[in-house]
Amino acid sequence: MRATVMHQAGDVRIEDVPDAHLIEATDALVRVSHAAICGSDLWPYKSMEPTESGRRMGHEFIGVVEDVGDDVRTVKPGELVVSPFLWSDGTCVFCREGLQSECLHGGRYGFGDVDGGQGEAVRVPQADGTLVALPVGEDDALMPSLLALSDVMGTGHHAAVAAKVGPGKTVAVVGDGAVGLCGVIASRRLGAEQIILLGNNPDRTALGREFGVSDIVTERGAEAAERVRELTGGLGAHCVLECVGLEQALDTALEIARPGGAIGRVGIPEHESTPTGVAFWKNASIAGGPAPVRAYIEELLPDVLEGRIEPGRVFDRVVDLDGVPDGYRAMNDRDSIKVLVTP
Amino acid sequence: MRATVMHQAGDVRIEDVPDAHLIEATDALVRVSHAAICGSDLWPYKSMEPTESGRRMGHEFIGVVEDVGDDVRTVKPGELVVSPFLWSDGTCVFCREGLQSECLHGGRYGFGDVDGGQGEAVRVPQADGTLVALPVGEDDALMPSLLALSDVMGTGHHAAVAAKVGPGKTVAVVGDGAVGLCGVIASRRLGAEQIILLGNNPDRTALGREFGVSDIVTERGAEAAERVRELTGGLGAHCVLECVGLEQALDTALEIARPGGAIGRVGIPEHESTPTGVAFWKNASIAGGPAPVRAYIEELLPDVLEGRIEPGRVFDRVVDLDGVPDGYRAMNDRDSIKVLVTP
Repeated sequence: MRATVMHQAGDVRIEDVPDAHLIEATDALVRVSHAAICGSDLWPYKSMEPTESGRRMGHEFIGVVEDVGDDVRTVKPGELVVSPFLWSDGTCVFCREGLQSECLHGGRYGFGDVDGGQGEAVRVPQADGTLVALPVGEDDALMPSLLALSDVMGTGHHAAVAAKVGPGKTVAVVGDGAVGLCGVIASRRLGAEQIILLGNNPDRTALGREFGVSDIVTERGAEAAERVRELTGGLGAHCVLECVGLEQALDTALEIARPGGAIGRVGIPEHESTPTGVAFWKNASIAGGPAPVRAYIEELLPDVLEGRIEPGRVFDRVVDLDGVPDGYRAMNDRDSIKVLVTP
Repeated sequence: MRATVMHQAGDVRIEDVPDAHLIEATDALVRVSHAAICGSDLWPYKSMEPTESGRRMGHEFIGVVEDVGDDVRTVKPGELVVSPFLWSDGTCVFCREGLQSECLHGGRYGFGDVDGGQGEAVRVPQADGTLVALPVGEDDALMPSLLALSDVMGTGHHAAVAAKVGPGKTVAVVGDGAVGLCGVIASRRLGAEQIILLGNNPDRTALGREFGVSDIVTERGAEAAERVRELTGGLGAHCVLECVGLEQALDTALEIARPGGAIGRVGIPEHESTPTGVAFWKNASIAGGPAPVRAYIEELLPDVLEGRIEPGRVFDRVVDLDGVPDGYRAMNDRDSIKVLVTP
């Protein structure tokens, strides 16, 4: 069969490769009717080192099931199916929690003996946990939008969910690529009140308008941040969708976020070993800052007054004002957990 | 009056300073009965450059109101009050949202003409928005726990809230200092199922046990992470409270977090200009990662089928398999938003 193989940066070829075929009893064989090129495919396209055998490409596709292994129950030959950009077993603890992208037994298309999506056919592992049957024919006019569900629309939605978009919220979307534009759709769908798109490609921002963008910011860097502040009463956006992945985009996202705001990131991070890079691959959130203790005093006071919590036990030393210098010493030397002062 | 002044690293003195007195109509004058030394006071104690006039210290205190300005309505002379570690107006948009630590008109104790808490008296700005009256006398046995509400208990609670602690959750607390221990109290109070404390001071971890710790990890770095994985069925902790602030602590927190987990950070970050440092001072959250598209396909499919969303409009070019190489070129040159392939 024919499939897309990348050999090095800038060198993409269509080649004859071994026919896709069933290997495991949980596999499905899918003839691809529609596939897509992803923004993330451009990373190797820009930077891949030359290799001997090349790399099979593509992870977004719709197709018709041609055959299934003995253990497959939820899809059958002849059905039109869409695949997420990762395959997943549907039964592990993460899949059951709806976090299939962290499946304990899942994986990526185009690696090992799993085909890529930009080809004539794909062996889909863990077909029951992976594929979703579509109730339309492969010539349906909805096909592009259904194909978008395989990655770009779900990814924009994930950015919006991570950024806590909801009714009444002000949203800023960093990046006018396909993911950013789907982030606009998702934000509108989730009830955002104002959607600001940061981008400078006229065709893309025009499409953003049609998807529900309220304001377009064509500036970059500090000027973009200033413009977003102007558009948000000086406060910044409640929700920021970072749909690029470059360090500069995360910096901009942080700058335009309102205090207490949320940044949802789906662009593959430029630097993987930074704390935010590590968090990305785990789908972990990082939150916190100076505590709004005034609010918490009211919340926690009844628990202290009624003896349900005893945080005062962290004080293991009491000094008068003259004892304060030694109190600093004691805490610094870890002789004391915390010092109470009675002036 | 007498108050604590730090002159440089390691040099803390009790000195005569001008008496605290009302300046604004919104001020209260509070005679301090109980104050505390904070872990964050140890930062200048370790590293402060010498200054001519020194720096007034302390931001955690309880005291008796001695006088109030004409506009103060909620506290009156003779009342015992506790102050959060920051003062806040109680009326700005952030205060109304319960995020008083980001108050537009608030500030810190010990700076400008505002006294520090480690002294005989304090002028409290924005008294109505800041102070909370206590229904007990200043000799009450609860005083240490009530004083803890001024910072350390609220800060531990904030870490737990930011880390999304709740019933059934596995929690790991990084740091056995006063904030970490209060993070244990908060996690227990919020219903955590398992609480793992990372620390190696026997007195502190023993107190942690009394507060509700299930498991203690005395190892550090990679060994600590390995131990937490063992204690959590190989998966890591749902919720990680980072109560130290050093880069190494954040790295450990990320390592021991379960995929999809949440890290709540309240330790003042060692590096303020990193993305996580910038986020800290804004109380902003950073979340996201590879999207669980399999879950979202089911959620979004009805919207596509019924025409409510049209993400397929991001495809602005269609190619057959032979057109794929040029499709990569077009996307890379930004000639195309996204390319659809029909093999």
